[in-house]
Amino acid sequence: MSETVVVIGGGPGGIEAARQVADLGLQSVLVEQRERLGGTPISANYAALTPYFANAEEAMDGMIAELEARDLAEVRTSTTVTEVSGEVGNFAVTLSNGDQIEAGAIILATGFDHFDPGRERQIYNYYQYPDVLALQDLEAQLKEHKVVVPSTGKAPERICWVQCVGSRDRNIGNEWCSKVCCGIASKQAIEVRKLSPETRAYIFYIDMRMYGYWETQLYWPAQEQYHVQYIKGIITEVLERGDRLVVRGEDTTMGRPLEVPMDMVILSVGMEPSQGTKTMADVIGVERNRHGFIDAINPPLDTVTTSKAGVFACGAALGPADLEDTVSSAGAAAGKAVALLRRGSLTAA
Amino acid sequence: MSETVVVIGGGPGGIEAARQVADLGLQSVLVEQRERLGGTPISANYAALTPYFANAEEAMDGMIAELEARDLAEVRTSTTVTEVSGEVGNFAVTLSNGDQIEAGAIILATGFDHFDPGRERQIYNYYQYPDVLALQDLEAQLKEHKVVVPSTGKAPERICWVQCVGSRDRNIGNEWCSKVCCGIASKQAIEVRKLSPETRAYIFYIDMRMYGYWETQLYWPAQEQYHVQYIKGIITEVLERGDRLVVRGEDTTMGRPLEVPMDMVILSVGMEPSQGTKTMADVIGVERNRHGFIDAINPPLDTVTTSKAGVFACGAALGPADLEDTVSSAGAAAGKAVALLRRGSLTAA
Repeated sequence: MSETVVVIGGGPGGIEAARQVADLGLQSVLVEQRERLGGTPISANYAALTPYFANAEEAMDGMIAELEARDLAEVRTSTTVTEVSGEVGNFAVTLSNGDQIEAGAIILATGFDHFDPGRERQIYNYYQYPDVLALQDLEAQLKEHKVVVPSTGKAPERICWVQCVGSRDRNIGNEWCSKVCCGIASKQAIEVRKLSPETRAYIFYIDMRMYGYWETQLYWPAQEQYHVQYIKGIITEVLERGDRLVVRGEDTTMGRPLEVPMDMVILSVGMEPSQGTKTMADVIGVERNRHGFIDAINPPLDTVTTSKAGVFACGAALGPADLEDTVSSAGAAAGKAVALLRRGSLTAA
Repeated sequence: MSETVVVIGGGPGGIEAARQVADLGLQSVLVEQRERLGGTPISANYAALTPYFANAEEAMDGMIAELEARDLAEVRTSTTVTEVSGEVGNFAVTLSNGDQIEAGAIILATGFDHFDPGRERQIYNYYQYPDVLALQDLEAQLKEHKVVVPSTGKAPERICWVQCVGSRDRNIGNEWCSKVCCGIASKQAIEVRKLSPETRAYIFYIDMRMYGYWETQLYWPAQEQYHVQYIKGIITEVLERGDRLVVRGEDTTMGRPLEVPMDMVILSVGMEPSQGTKTMADVIGVERNRHGFIDAINPPLDTVTTSKAGVFACGAALGPADLEDTVSSAGAAAGKAVALLRRGSLTAA
């Protein structure tokens, strides 16, 4: 029996899980396909983390430094898992470089991908119009401390966010709410208004899902201090008219059609199971739920146990998750993995 | 130095944390003020847990049985913590029966209280009208597999839920969104429609915060299978007219005043810091945030560390939390507490 825990995925969840396994006294091996750790906040150029506006790179560097300070934590970047055989207590995990690791347990922290807003439907013209961006495209600008209309290089006079792009949408098969996009759009709107006070900012939403403290951390300041305009409405089209964009839809509160000129449109794209989540589920043989994320088999009172003994999951591999969800479930998964191996009796998982 | 972890509060979070500490090889002592474990789901007579409709009593009994099967977990019911002295690694925890426990770390799992809808304002006439109930009052009925108008003993023809009672409300000082009430009201509406198919059910809401999978687990079935009517509106008064209730307010979507007769009105009360959370924060000397819940000092990438070294918190002691949040953060808190004590170096918490 091996007392090593292999953690797959080097984002916030994987880093937290790998560090926690090491802190609990077992060897962890963190396997990350990219060249560097940090996950989506780094690979997608996040500027500030929601909801506290911490610099994403600094925050992730802090987590990574903590991990690297642990003797019991080994990191393998630019590496993927190509095969897993064996069973709980005695998994053989084969890596892309040919190495094989004996592992007692596995934690899946393979995260999410951003919905591709040009994939299913063209109503937003994401790939056609340079000034239609997705959340992560604007993050890349904010990381450079700027907000500019791509086609002109100038600050926008009017910018809007379109919520629920790739979420709550039966037609494209993404039925879930992606949970974080309301908060992220509000955070971005605040950042835009700080960087460019003359820019007018609008958020078109179905419901503003600013749960818990996000209500007062983001939603109220966005409205009261930063004068972001929230409009309950459904946007059904983004068009070009002259050198400007026009968003069309229905203002639900006013009960009338809506057609507003914009310089820049940000699509609040939702979360989908990442390619890594799908591939690793197949390689390891764990069940996915009907939405394609890893299935937690005993919710709500066990959030991390999967269909395969000895395999746990955390964060957005399990479904839409904010950073706090991710770090909490990563800690829980690390604890369950270590407890399982320490207990010796592998059947009582 | 003591390797015992004292867990305060015997709800889902505390039970999970105490079990996990034991599974990680350290002694845990769970201290619960009530006669029995189970926390609010038991003391407030919850029927089915959100969102999977598991029987609350069976689910909690399952958790409790798991805890009781651990030799390293000790349970003290009908007991409170009266004094805590010392510091990380060497706390002396005095109990109401005079016993003193040496503890290396402490986990606060002291949860929430339901907002008292008659405390601040009388607009809903909770204490005046027998047919105005709070969420937990209806849970007690549902637990008995019935739904009846208290004043008549008959099934209601019309029932409604009023969302955001004691939440998102600056006037009463509860600025946060309580996160779970949209889901619980929807769950209850489904249960009512199952038990009494002739009852018409209405939910008056500001935003339906059905994040993540709740969208398809609860919100869509409530509308499509159970024909629950969701009305975006603000209810400002509940009155009696003849032998019926009348809810008055504004239908936000239609932009007009709303006045609807009801047989039963359910107030979707929010979460407040429990008395136990407030008292224990004072006894132990941990900071609370401006909303009165325990302050997590390093969010979002550390969800459980408090202002006092060696003291962690989980679940709704930290703020509005659903069951999955609670169980995840409980696992994370248990892991951090055990790691701290195992590491020996107590400064590197």
